[in-house]
Amino acid sequence: MSPEDKERRGSGPEASDSVGWTSARTIRLVAADAPVELELGDTLGPIDVEYETYGTLSPRKDNVVFIAHALTGDAHVAGWDKDTEKNGRTWRDRKPGWWDAVVGPGKAIDTSRYFVICPNVLGSCYGTTGPASIDPLTGKPYGLHFPMVTVGDWVQLHARLLDALGIARIRSIIGGSIGGQQALEMALAFPERVERVVVLAAAPRLSAQGVAFNAVARYCILNDPNFSGGDYYGRDKGPDAGLAAARMLAHITYLSDEGMHEKFGRRLQRDGDQKAGFGIEFAVESYLDYQGRAFVERFDANSYLYITRAMDYYDAAAAWGGGSLVEACRRVKASALVVSFDSDWLYPPADCRDLALALTRTGTRVTYAEVPSRFGHDSFLVETQKVGRLLRSFLAH
Amino acid sequence: MSPEDKERRGSGPEASDSVGWTSARTIRLVAADAPVELELGDTLGPIDVEYETYGTLSPRKDNVVFIAHALTGDAHVAGWDKDTEKNGRTWRDRKPGWWDAVVGPGKAIDTSRYFVICPNVLGSCYGTTGPASIDPLTGKPYGLHFPMVTVGDWVQLHARLLDALGIARIRSIIGGSIGGQQALEMALAFPERVERVVVLAAAPRLSAQGVAFNAVARYCILNDPNFSGGDYYGRDKGPDAGLAAARMLAHITYLSDEGMHEKFGRRLQRDGDQKAGFGIEFAVESYLDYQGRAFVERFDANSYLYITRAMDYYDAAAAWGGGSLVEACRRVKASALVVSFDSDWLYPPADCRDLALALTRTGTRVTYAEVPSRFGHDSFLVETQKVGRLLRSFLAH
Repeated sequence: MSPEDKERRGSGPEASDSVGWTSARTIRLVAADAPVELELGDTLGPIDVEYETYGTLSPRKDNVVFIAHALTGDAHVAGWDKDTEKNGRTWRDRKPGWWDAVVGPGKAIDTSRYFVICPNVLGSCYGTTGPASIDPLTGKPYGLHFPMVTVGDWVQLHARLLDALGIARIRSIIGGSIGGQQALEMALAFPERVERVVVLAAAPRLSAQGVAFNAVARYCILNDPNFSGGDYYGRDKGPDAGLAAARMLAHITYLSDEGMHEKFGRRLQRDGDQKAGFGIEFAVESYLDYQGRAFVERFDANSYLYITRAMDYYDAAAAWGGGSLVEACRRVKASALVVSFDSDWLYPPADCRDLALALTRTGTRVTYAEVPSRFGHDSFLVETQKVGRLLRSFLAH
Repeated sequence: MSPEDKERRGSGPEASDSVGWTSARTIRLVAADAPVELELGDTLGPIDVEYETYGTLSPRKDNVVFIAHALTGDAHVAGWDKDTEKNGRTWRDRKPGWWDAVVGPGKAIDTSRYFVICPNVLGSCYGTTGPASIDPLTGKPYGLHFPMVTVGDWVQLHARLLDALGIARIRSIIGGSIGGQQALEMALAFPERVERVVVLAAAPRLSAQGVAFNAVARYCILNDPNFSGGDYYGRDKGPDAGLAAARMLAHITYLSDEGMHEKFGRRLQRDGDQKAGFGIEFAVESYLDYQGRAFVERFDANSYLYITRAMDYYDAAAAWGGGSLVEACRRVKASALVVSFDSDWLYPPADCRDLALALTRTGTRVTYAEVPSRFGHDSFLVETQKVGRLLRSFLAH
């Protein structure tokens, strides 16, 4: 296990700074007979949302830290969860939450002070209603009949979840990558409900290059013959090769050139007397192959399509400022922490800085940090100490 | 047609600065009964090489400019060629050569002064022996029975071609991308035969990130069910989806983030009342889709596998300097021009500069230029005026 993997695993469930064993809850936020209208015009109901919470909600309900997860993340932010069978597959390994090093008693997001909530997003495969859920009209999984969803739709659901829990206003919403876009969107859509917003490794919109990578990833899935038009649930084969290719490609964009150079270089990793050919020969090929295989075991191809499309669509300036980011930012009432990572080329520092500048120009109190790191876009997950220090200080003051 | 496309098309075949209508020649450089041993240990024979020449060889045979093409390029550098049927498919459209703006009478590589040669590389699908050629042992196309080839093998063949034409020494070898690696390799393997070497947008080895992109591209091809283990020739379907995905992905690496932003941004390009979904919606998606489709019409998937693997393997320092680039460069007797492009992230300027520095440290006369351009790796093809000026001056002095 590499040092960064170790750090990401965090402490064990019995450790005093762990939230311990956790379990997810599911809540029906939209009834079947009262479907919601989604941003792109479709309607959907029922909607169930899976979420986890850690810590204790204060009597005045004023200690809420809301965490928004990234593309392939889930509600299981911290602590240790048991394997969960969903849709006939084991979606999770037995391992700590994806941000266990940051969330727990005494940790940067201190669960002895804050009540932490993280819901799984609409369209995902981790418990919240998504393309693998049963369409009440047909009694079969939605597949591609699931409606298009947006970051805006996710945030509307986040607000419904807060309503259901009786929480009027949150101390902070925090997210990285597309989670950071949810955080920004929450501060834009519900300015009165957000005291502090933290945007990590995320910009107000994805670049053309980012859209292009998502397009190739989806092409691989959509053109896998086992995709079967999205109707592969319950069949022998799903679009595993397409989904693996999508993940391999995405992983390149999560790392940095220099990080890959340091970690793999051009090192060969051949089996014994393996001949030169098209097998796995370079260490970096072995890494990608592993990432592709592991992902297919834990994620649903349809969800990957829906969530990457939501990532493409998100454009805070277009949605709230008629194309002007500064105009959009006038809505924000929260104070803001914007963090970029110098080797991140999926959401490059310049784009994150643009957000910080736009917020500053509208009178928002903003802290902007460009963190040096060789981990690329993954830095927001991996650089837990550096990010943790920034979070701790921003939440406290 | 965009201005850069126009520039790339160059002048028509009747123009005074065009080499006019061209035709390729094919020469058997390796006989069936005298196969060559390749760098990775296999043997191969016969080997036919397709090449084009422009201009007139001087009586002393001392005016040769050798051009090495890039991954998906061919011997048709300049002028206008008729459609050619190869392996039952039309591999070429009727259009000028890939560097027509640079090569011709009075142009930067002036065919009224120089005799220009460009052969197609071993393993390609454009006339030189490759995986689509007939294996004399079976009477069927080689497919994946074709041996692994390297940049070193290509350059050994280049030398055989020069031998066959009675050319002892060349005034210059010039190439971009993997063509630049061939140029470098020629200067390393045959130092006495090269007077000047020009390396454009190429480094002495591909980065881990570059290997990773190639790995994903090959994964898409190898996992396309119509790939049929490489034995798809003559069948109804080949691995078109896999090859298109590979090309789409590669195209992202040929452009720059800022170039894509300027050219496409986040512009939508939907058909009429097209609903949001997983079709082509963003302009950049339309571009990639077109590039993928066009490529499938003109390139062979097996060739793509072999040539990208050769690209992965190439490592000048390992091959010639026991891992030290400076030691390797001690072999070079040519003077050198190394050109990088500031927005190229496939062969980044820092890696090209390392080559220039290593050459300088071994006493080679080196000109190094980092050309500002928004066209990314493609700059060596697109920035014909800037590159042309550098070439003209380097060849003349």
